[in-house]
Amino acid sequence: MAKDRRAGITPRAEDYARWYLEVVQRAELADYAPVKGCMVIKPYGYAIWEAIQRTLDGMIKETGHVNAYFPLLIPVSFLQKEAEHVEGFAMECAVVTHSGLYKDEDGRLRARGELEEPLIVRPTSETIIWHTVRNWIQSWRDLPLLLNQWANVMRWEMRPRLFLRTLEFLWQEGHTAHATHQEAREETLRMLGVYRRLLEEHFAIHVVAGRKSEAEKFPGALSTFTVEAMMQDGRALQAGTSHDLGQNFSRAFEVTFQDRDGTLQHVWTTSWGVSTRLVGALVMAHGDDSGLVLPPRLAPVQVVVVPFLRRPEDRARVEPALARLVDGLRAQGVRLHVDARDHVSPGAKFYEWEGKGVPLRVELGPREVERGEVVEVRRYDGRRRALSLEAFVQGVVPALEEIQRDLLVRHRAFTEARLHRCQSYAELQDVIEGDRGWVLAWWCGGAPCEARVKEQTKATIRCIPLEGEMPGAAARCIVCGEGAAERVVFARAY
Amino acid sequence: MAKDRRAGITPRAEDYARWYLEVVQRAELADYAPVKGCMVIKPYGYAIWEAIQRTLDGMIKETGHVNAYFPLLIPVSFLQKEAEHVEGFAMECAVVTHSGLYKDEDGRLRARGELEEPLIVRPTSETIIWHTVRNWIQSWRDLPLLLNQWANVMRWEMRPRLFLRTLEFLWQEGHTAHATHQEAREETLRMLGVYRRLLEEHFAIHVVAGRKSEAEKFPGALSTFTVEAMMQDGRALQAGTSHDLGQNFSRAFEVTFQDRDGTLQHVWTTSWGVSTRLVGALVMAHGDDSGLVLPPRLAPVQVVVVPFLRRPEDRARVEPALARLVDGLRAQGVRLHVDARDHVSPGAKFYEWEGKGVPLRVELGPREVERGEVVEVRRYDGRRRALSLEAFVQGVVPALEEIQRDLLVRHRAFTEARLHRCQSYAELQDVIEGDRGWVLAWWCGGAPCEARVKEQTKATIRCIPLEGEMPGAAARCIVCGEGAAERVVFARAY
Repeated sequence: MAKDRRAGITPRAEDYARWYLEVVQRAELADYAPVKGCMVIKPYGYAIWEAIQRTLDGMIKETGHVNAYFPLLIPVSFLQKEAEHVEGFAMECAVVTHSGLYKDEDGRLRARGELEEPLIVRPTSETIIWHTVRNWIQSWRDLPLLLNQWANVMRWEMRPRLFLRTLEFLWQEGHTAHATHQEAREETLRMLGVYRRLLEEHFAIHVVAGRKSEAEKFPGALSTFTVEAMMQDGRALQAGTSHDLGQNFSRAFEVTFQDRDGTLQHVWTTSWGVSTRLVGALVMAHGDDSGLVLPPRLAPVQVVVVPFLRRPEDRARVEPALARLVDGLRAQGVRLHVDARDHVSPGAKFYEWEGKGVPLRVELGPREVERGEVVEVRRYDGRRRALSLEAFVQGVVPALEEIQRDLLVRHRAFTEARLHRCQSYAELQDVIEGDRGWVLAWWCGGAPCEARVKEQTKATIRCIPLEGEMPGAAARCIVCGEGAAERVVFARAY
Repeated sequence: MAKDRRAGITPRAEDYARWYLEVVQRAELADYAPVKGCMVIKPYGYAIWEAIQRTLDGMIKETGHVNAYFPLLIPVSFLQKEAEHVEGFAMECAVVTHSGLYKDEDGRLRARGELEEPLIVRPTSETIIWHTVRNWIQSWRDLPLLLNQWANVMRWEMRPRLFLRTLEFLWQEGHTAHATHQEAREETLRMLGVYRRLLEEHFAIHVVAGRKSEAEKFPGALSTFTVEAMMQDGRALQAGTSHDLGQNFSRAFEVTFQDRDGTLQHVWTTSWGVSTRLVGALVMAHGDDSGLVLPPRLAPVQVVVVPFLRRPEDRARVEPALARLVDGLRAQGVRLHVDARDHVSPGAKFYEWEGKGVPLRVELGPREVERGEVVEVRRYDGRRRALSLEAFVQGVVPALEEIQRDLLVRHRAFTEARLHRCQSYAELQDVIEGDRGWVLAWWCGGAPCEARVKEQTKATIRCIPLEGEMPGAAARCIVCGEGAAERVVFARAY
């Protein structure tokens, strides 16, 4: 007997981590691979990633960047050239030590051909890129150099989780060089803005944009900027980061240019990236106890049509209306799927497409055809209504836009309701330990206070919001009570 | 003093290998990376690869396939499950043995955290895919399963060459499963047909499609099919392959399905791929002694406009015409670049864009504006003519189409003139050793005859053409003189 495909998903309130895994698997987004911590991205999950790529690639090119490709393997010695960088990544590098295999006496495959210098599988590409690119830059006329790469990277993860933390993940990494620090800083913030727009306009996810504390910044950066999104369990997810790298990498790799005045200067560099973890963000920001809920702009299928064609006489009556519906939607560029499988019941189809988060479902049977109607069901709020086939076709694009907007409004309201402005450490502990959301609080800027919060509550400083207030004279650090320097967001994070 | 950027390219007739390298570097397509055999794909080269990807991805999806992503790292034991497969790839695998680095007493980074089982960086993904996908298939209703993946793969190469043979390369690999051998065979040939269309219609490269001999087929395949293209030095380049894998991998990984009659069967699988070596094929099929020559459909820039704006009074006169020209081309979706750099002379610009193979160059200066004209120069044959700005704009799309057609006609004629129908072994030796092209000849089907040709002339059987003749009674093997089974193409190859 076949497995019951309609076994329910664990409710979020019961076990959030389990709910997440079940939604990912039910929607056929991804699964674990045989190598622990690696992930297979299944076709439906990959189609979402392709939609993200298409959208973001366009935004990256519009801002003047070009794509290139740098090698997967990096000599170990490169990593060592930037002191903080090596500290940050050495412990989690996959290391290639041999270039072949042979069969031993028992017929088992063993590594042969030991390499002179071990190679690492890139955890990020600053070192290999700046080593290479120094030859592309001679004068100020060659700047800015605005590169991006779509690639796989690898960081050995001890506690993997599909999309959120996997040993291998897919991402884009932008790398740029500039003649002045000011230009590099502008670039860092420009790309942070691109990520914010990507998240808000396409993912319908509200984010808080800010700067990382010294303890949380990228190894090798002067400053790291981030967009942080609140998941439904109140935790933060770092959705994208943009780094002002100063001259740290250009000094380590001797990337210089001749300036207008004839002097030789080191370039100022940036890097910025988002990854397949954004698919996990989609799941956790919008999903519900029936499964995935996709924003229309990133949905591989925006409208699924379920025609009722079981009896031969139904087929003859339904098919002409179905053809009109399909033609009408295609003409508007709507991404459409007609689920005409005859060995699956309508109920099972509804359940499957609900799990996959398709924004709109349309039901079309003999009764609807008789009335000249279709039944429309919205995924995100379950609203069900009958309307004329023509009205549905005419209204489908605005309806998808409305859903897109509504999802952002809902997620923004969700976030703001759980962003607690706390005055005392007890309040902070209450919010964090009760999983009630994020804490917005004054901080003295001191590492000991930051470390104490982390140790006692597992919350970290997610960011110092860009749209922050200046501290008044009365502003006191929520930990030590001394004069405050900045207002920060504390939260537990993925 | 700056290097002379206009130093000539070595002529093809003088040193073909050197010409190739210089064209690739002059056009800024790629360069060698610090790890021997690895390649950096520079923005202009990557833009060509993006055009190839965009085109082929559309063709792959039109034929019903979906993209997915499988892990980079594969347990060594998987490779061993298919006997021929492991023989074919074991010697050239990059092996990951450790999961971190530590600093030794001298401060040098060394590998730590030895893995229980070594992992290989995928040289191709049959093993990891069929291990995973067996769980996706239960019944005949789940078939055919039509997957594709865009990925990087790695094969340790002893004699690397940019694009043609690199340790890491980018490719797509299709993997499909079918209920019957006939369907799998049809799929294999369908995708070979897609590659043939890709090469002929987009690359303007004539190919010979055929089947590989037993000695030359993919390790683990029942049959391998190939499209072979002739380079300008008369050598063959295997441009794409499509494999009928029979049940070899489904038996090795126990991929079964319940058939309509209720019995449990092994699926029949195929795989097929093309890679970044196609960029090398473009260079070697069309390039000339001035550099790259790109077919318009794959050219990142189809038209480059060089306005003469040196003197302020020129600028005022040229700019209105330039704006009309740009608007006219953009409106037709032409990929356009205006090279308005004021620190580079027109001659240096011509030289640079010639080297980059841009199909059409347009010159627009005060003299042209006065006459209401532009000067158009075609890259592939150097034809230069003045015509009215309006006529150029109106005729640009047909002109690009004509260039696309002409390049294919030229390459087809080139190939056919060098495809020698040989009757004797001496003739064969003459053609091959004189680098005069390919040999079409009868072959008995025996491995010793094939091996003898390879040993004595370094030519291999490139394929048994699909559009072959049946051997008549008089057909004799060109090597041993016995009765012939098939007509084959012998050639030296990249």
